[in-house]
Amino acid sequence: MGLALRLAAAGVPVTVGSRTAERATQKVDEALDRWADRDLRIDARQNEQAASADIVVLATPWDAAVATASGLADVLAGKVVVSMANALQRVGEEFQPLIPARGSVAESVQAALPRSDVGAAFHHVPARLLGNLDQEMDCDVLVCADRPEAITQTERLVACIPGLRPVTAGTLSLAGAIEAFTGVLLNVNVRHKARAAIKLTGL
Amino acid sequence: MGLALRLAAAGVPVTVGSRTAERATQKVDEALDRWADRDLRIDARQNEQAASADIVVLATPWDAAVATASGLADVLAGKVVVSMANALQRVGEEFQPLIPARGSVAESVQAALPRSDVGAAFHHVPARLLGNLDQEMDCDVLVCADRPEAITQTERLVACIPGLRPVTAGTLSLAGAIEAFTGVLLNVNVRHKARAAIKLTGL
Repeated sequence: MGLALRLAAAGVPVTVGSRTAERATQKVDEALDRWADRDLRIDARQNEQAASADIVVLATPWDAAVATASGLADVLAGKVVVSMANALQRVGEEFQPLIPARGSVAESVQAALPRSDVGAAFHHVPARLLGNLDQEMDCDVLVCADRPEAITQTERLVACIPGLRPVTAGTLSLAGAIEAFTGVLLNVNVRHKARAAIKLTGL
Repeated sequence: MGLALRLAAAGVPVTVGSRTAERATQKVDEALDRWADRDLRIDARQNEQAASADIVVLATPWDAAVATASGLADVLAGKVVVSMANALQRVGEEFQPLIPARGSVAESVQAALPRSDVGAAFHHVPARLLGNLDQEMDCDVLVCADRPEAITQTERLVACIPGLRPVTAGTLSLAGAIEAFTGVLLNVNVRHKARAAIKLTGL
């Protein structure tokens, strides 16, 4: 929802999908109510309809990403699908990265969507920061995908949002490292009561 | 050697170890020759003798880390041993992270040194940057270890070097994510002809 809000605030037409149109509408209304002073437009639809957009961001919890993607494989065929989930497990006070089948959530989603091109992005942007339109962002967003077209489209989406800079990392073979590193950032945030994001210096 | 130079430049007494004292001396002399205008002192010893220092940094290539550590287990008992290696494989133009036994180089070294406390640090500082004393550094160094004392000692070592800020990440369960992320940074550097390092914003 944070991503939908930021994109809408940047003037990008956004449709939020959920299992039912009612649930999508409820979530979108809640978000728009909080930002009622802003001129934001976000559509709400059932997943199948939301998935007909030009580019689709899969923003489920990590353990629902593959199942959700599989069920939409036909609608998503021929499109770029952006994976942003991180497989993490809370162990005591610590967030520990898990290694999903195929090495990462993104690679698992790509395997579930052989007719789509998966781009991985947005992993390190703290969700709360993304959802708080009053706060300026200054984050680098690492992007990886196997096909150059998927990198281009994913980076174009990232660049729509002020304060986010897309940085090409490489193929989906790097997605596991990018996803797992989110666990490190979360721990840093818990330990230091901060909202750490990464900036690459020397670029 | 970059780390030895930076520590020596900061006034920390450093001993560089190698399989033979001759090889250690040769490497140290080469490095000191390059920085002959500076007042640097670095001792050169065989590994067993170098390992008698108060804190020991294991700075071998990643695939030699466990074997080197195992051979020194007795000398290293009771000490903090800092692991800084990253398991990476070059595949075509891309550096891809490998997952060593036990999840990371640091955890593998810890398993090989049950009587020592392994701290993991320095992974994201570009080696060339570290070795170029003319260049100022501005990097965050993520530190993890299972015992608080190992975190404290490792961070004290990091903080000796101007331009490096230690940031506690958590236990060695996070070392794999930190090590693998080095592959992402290397690819960013190759693609963007840069020397990217990370800074955590919002801390």
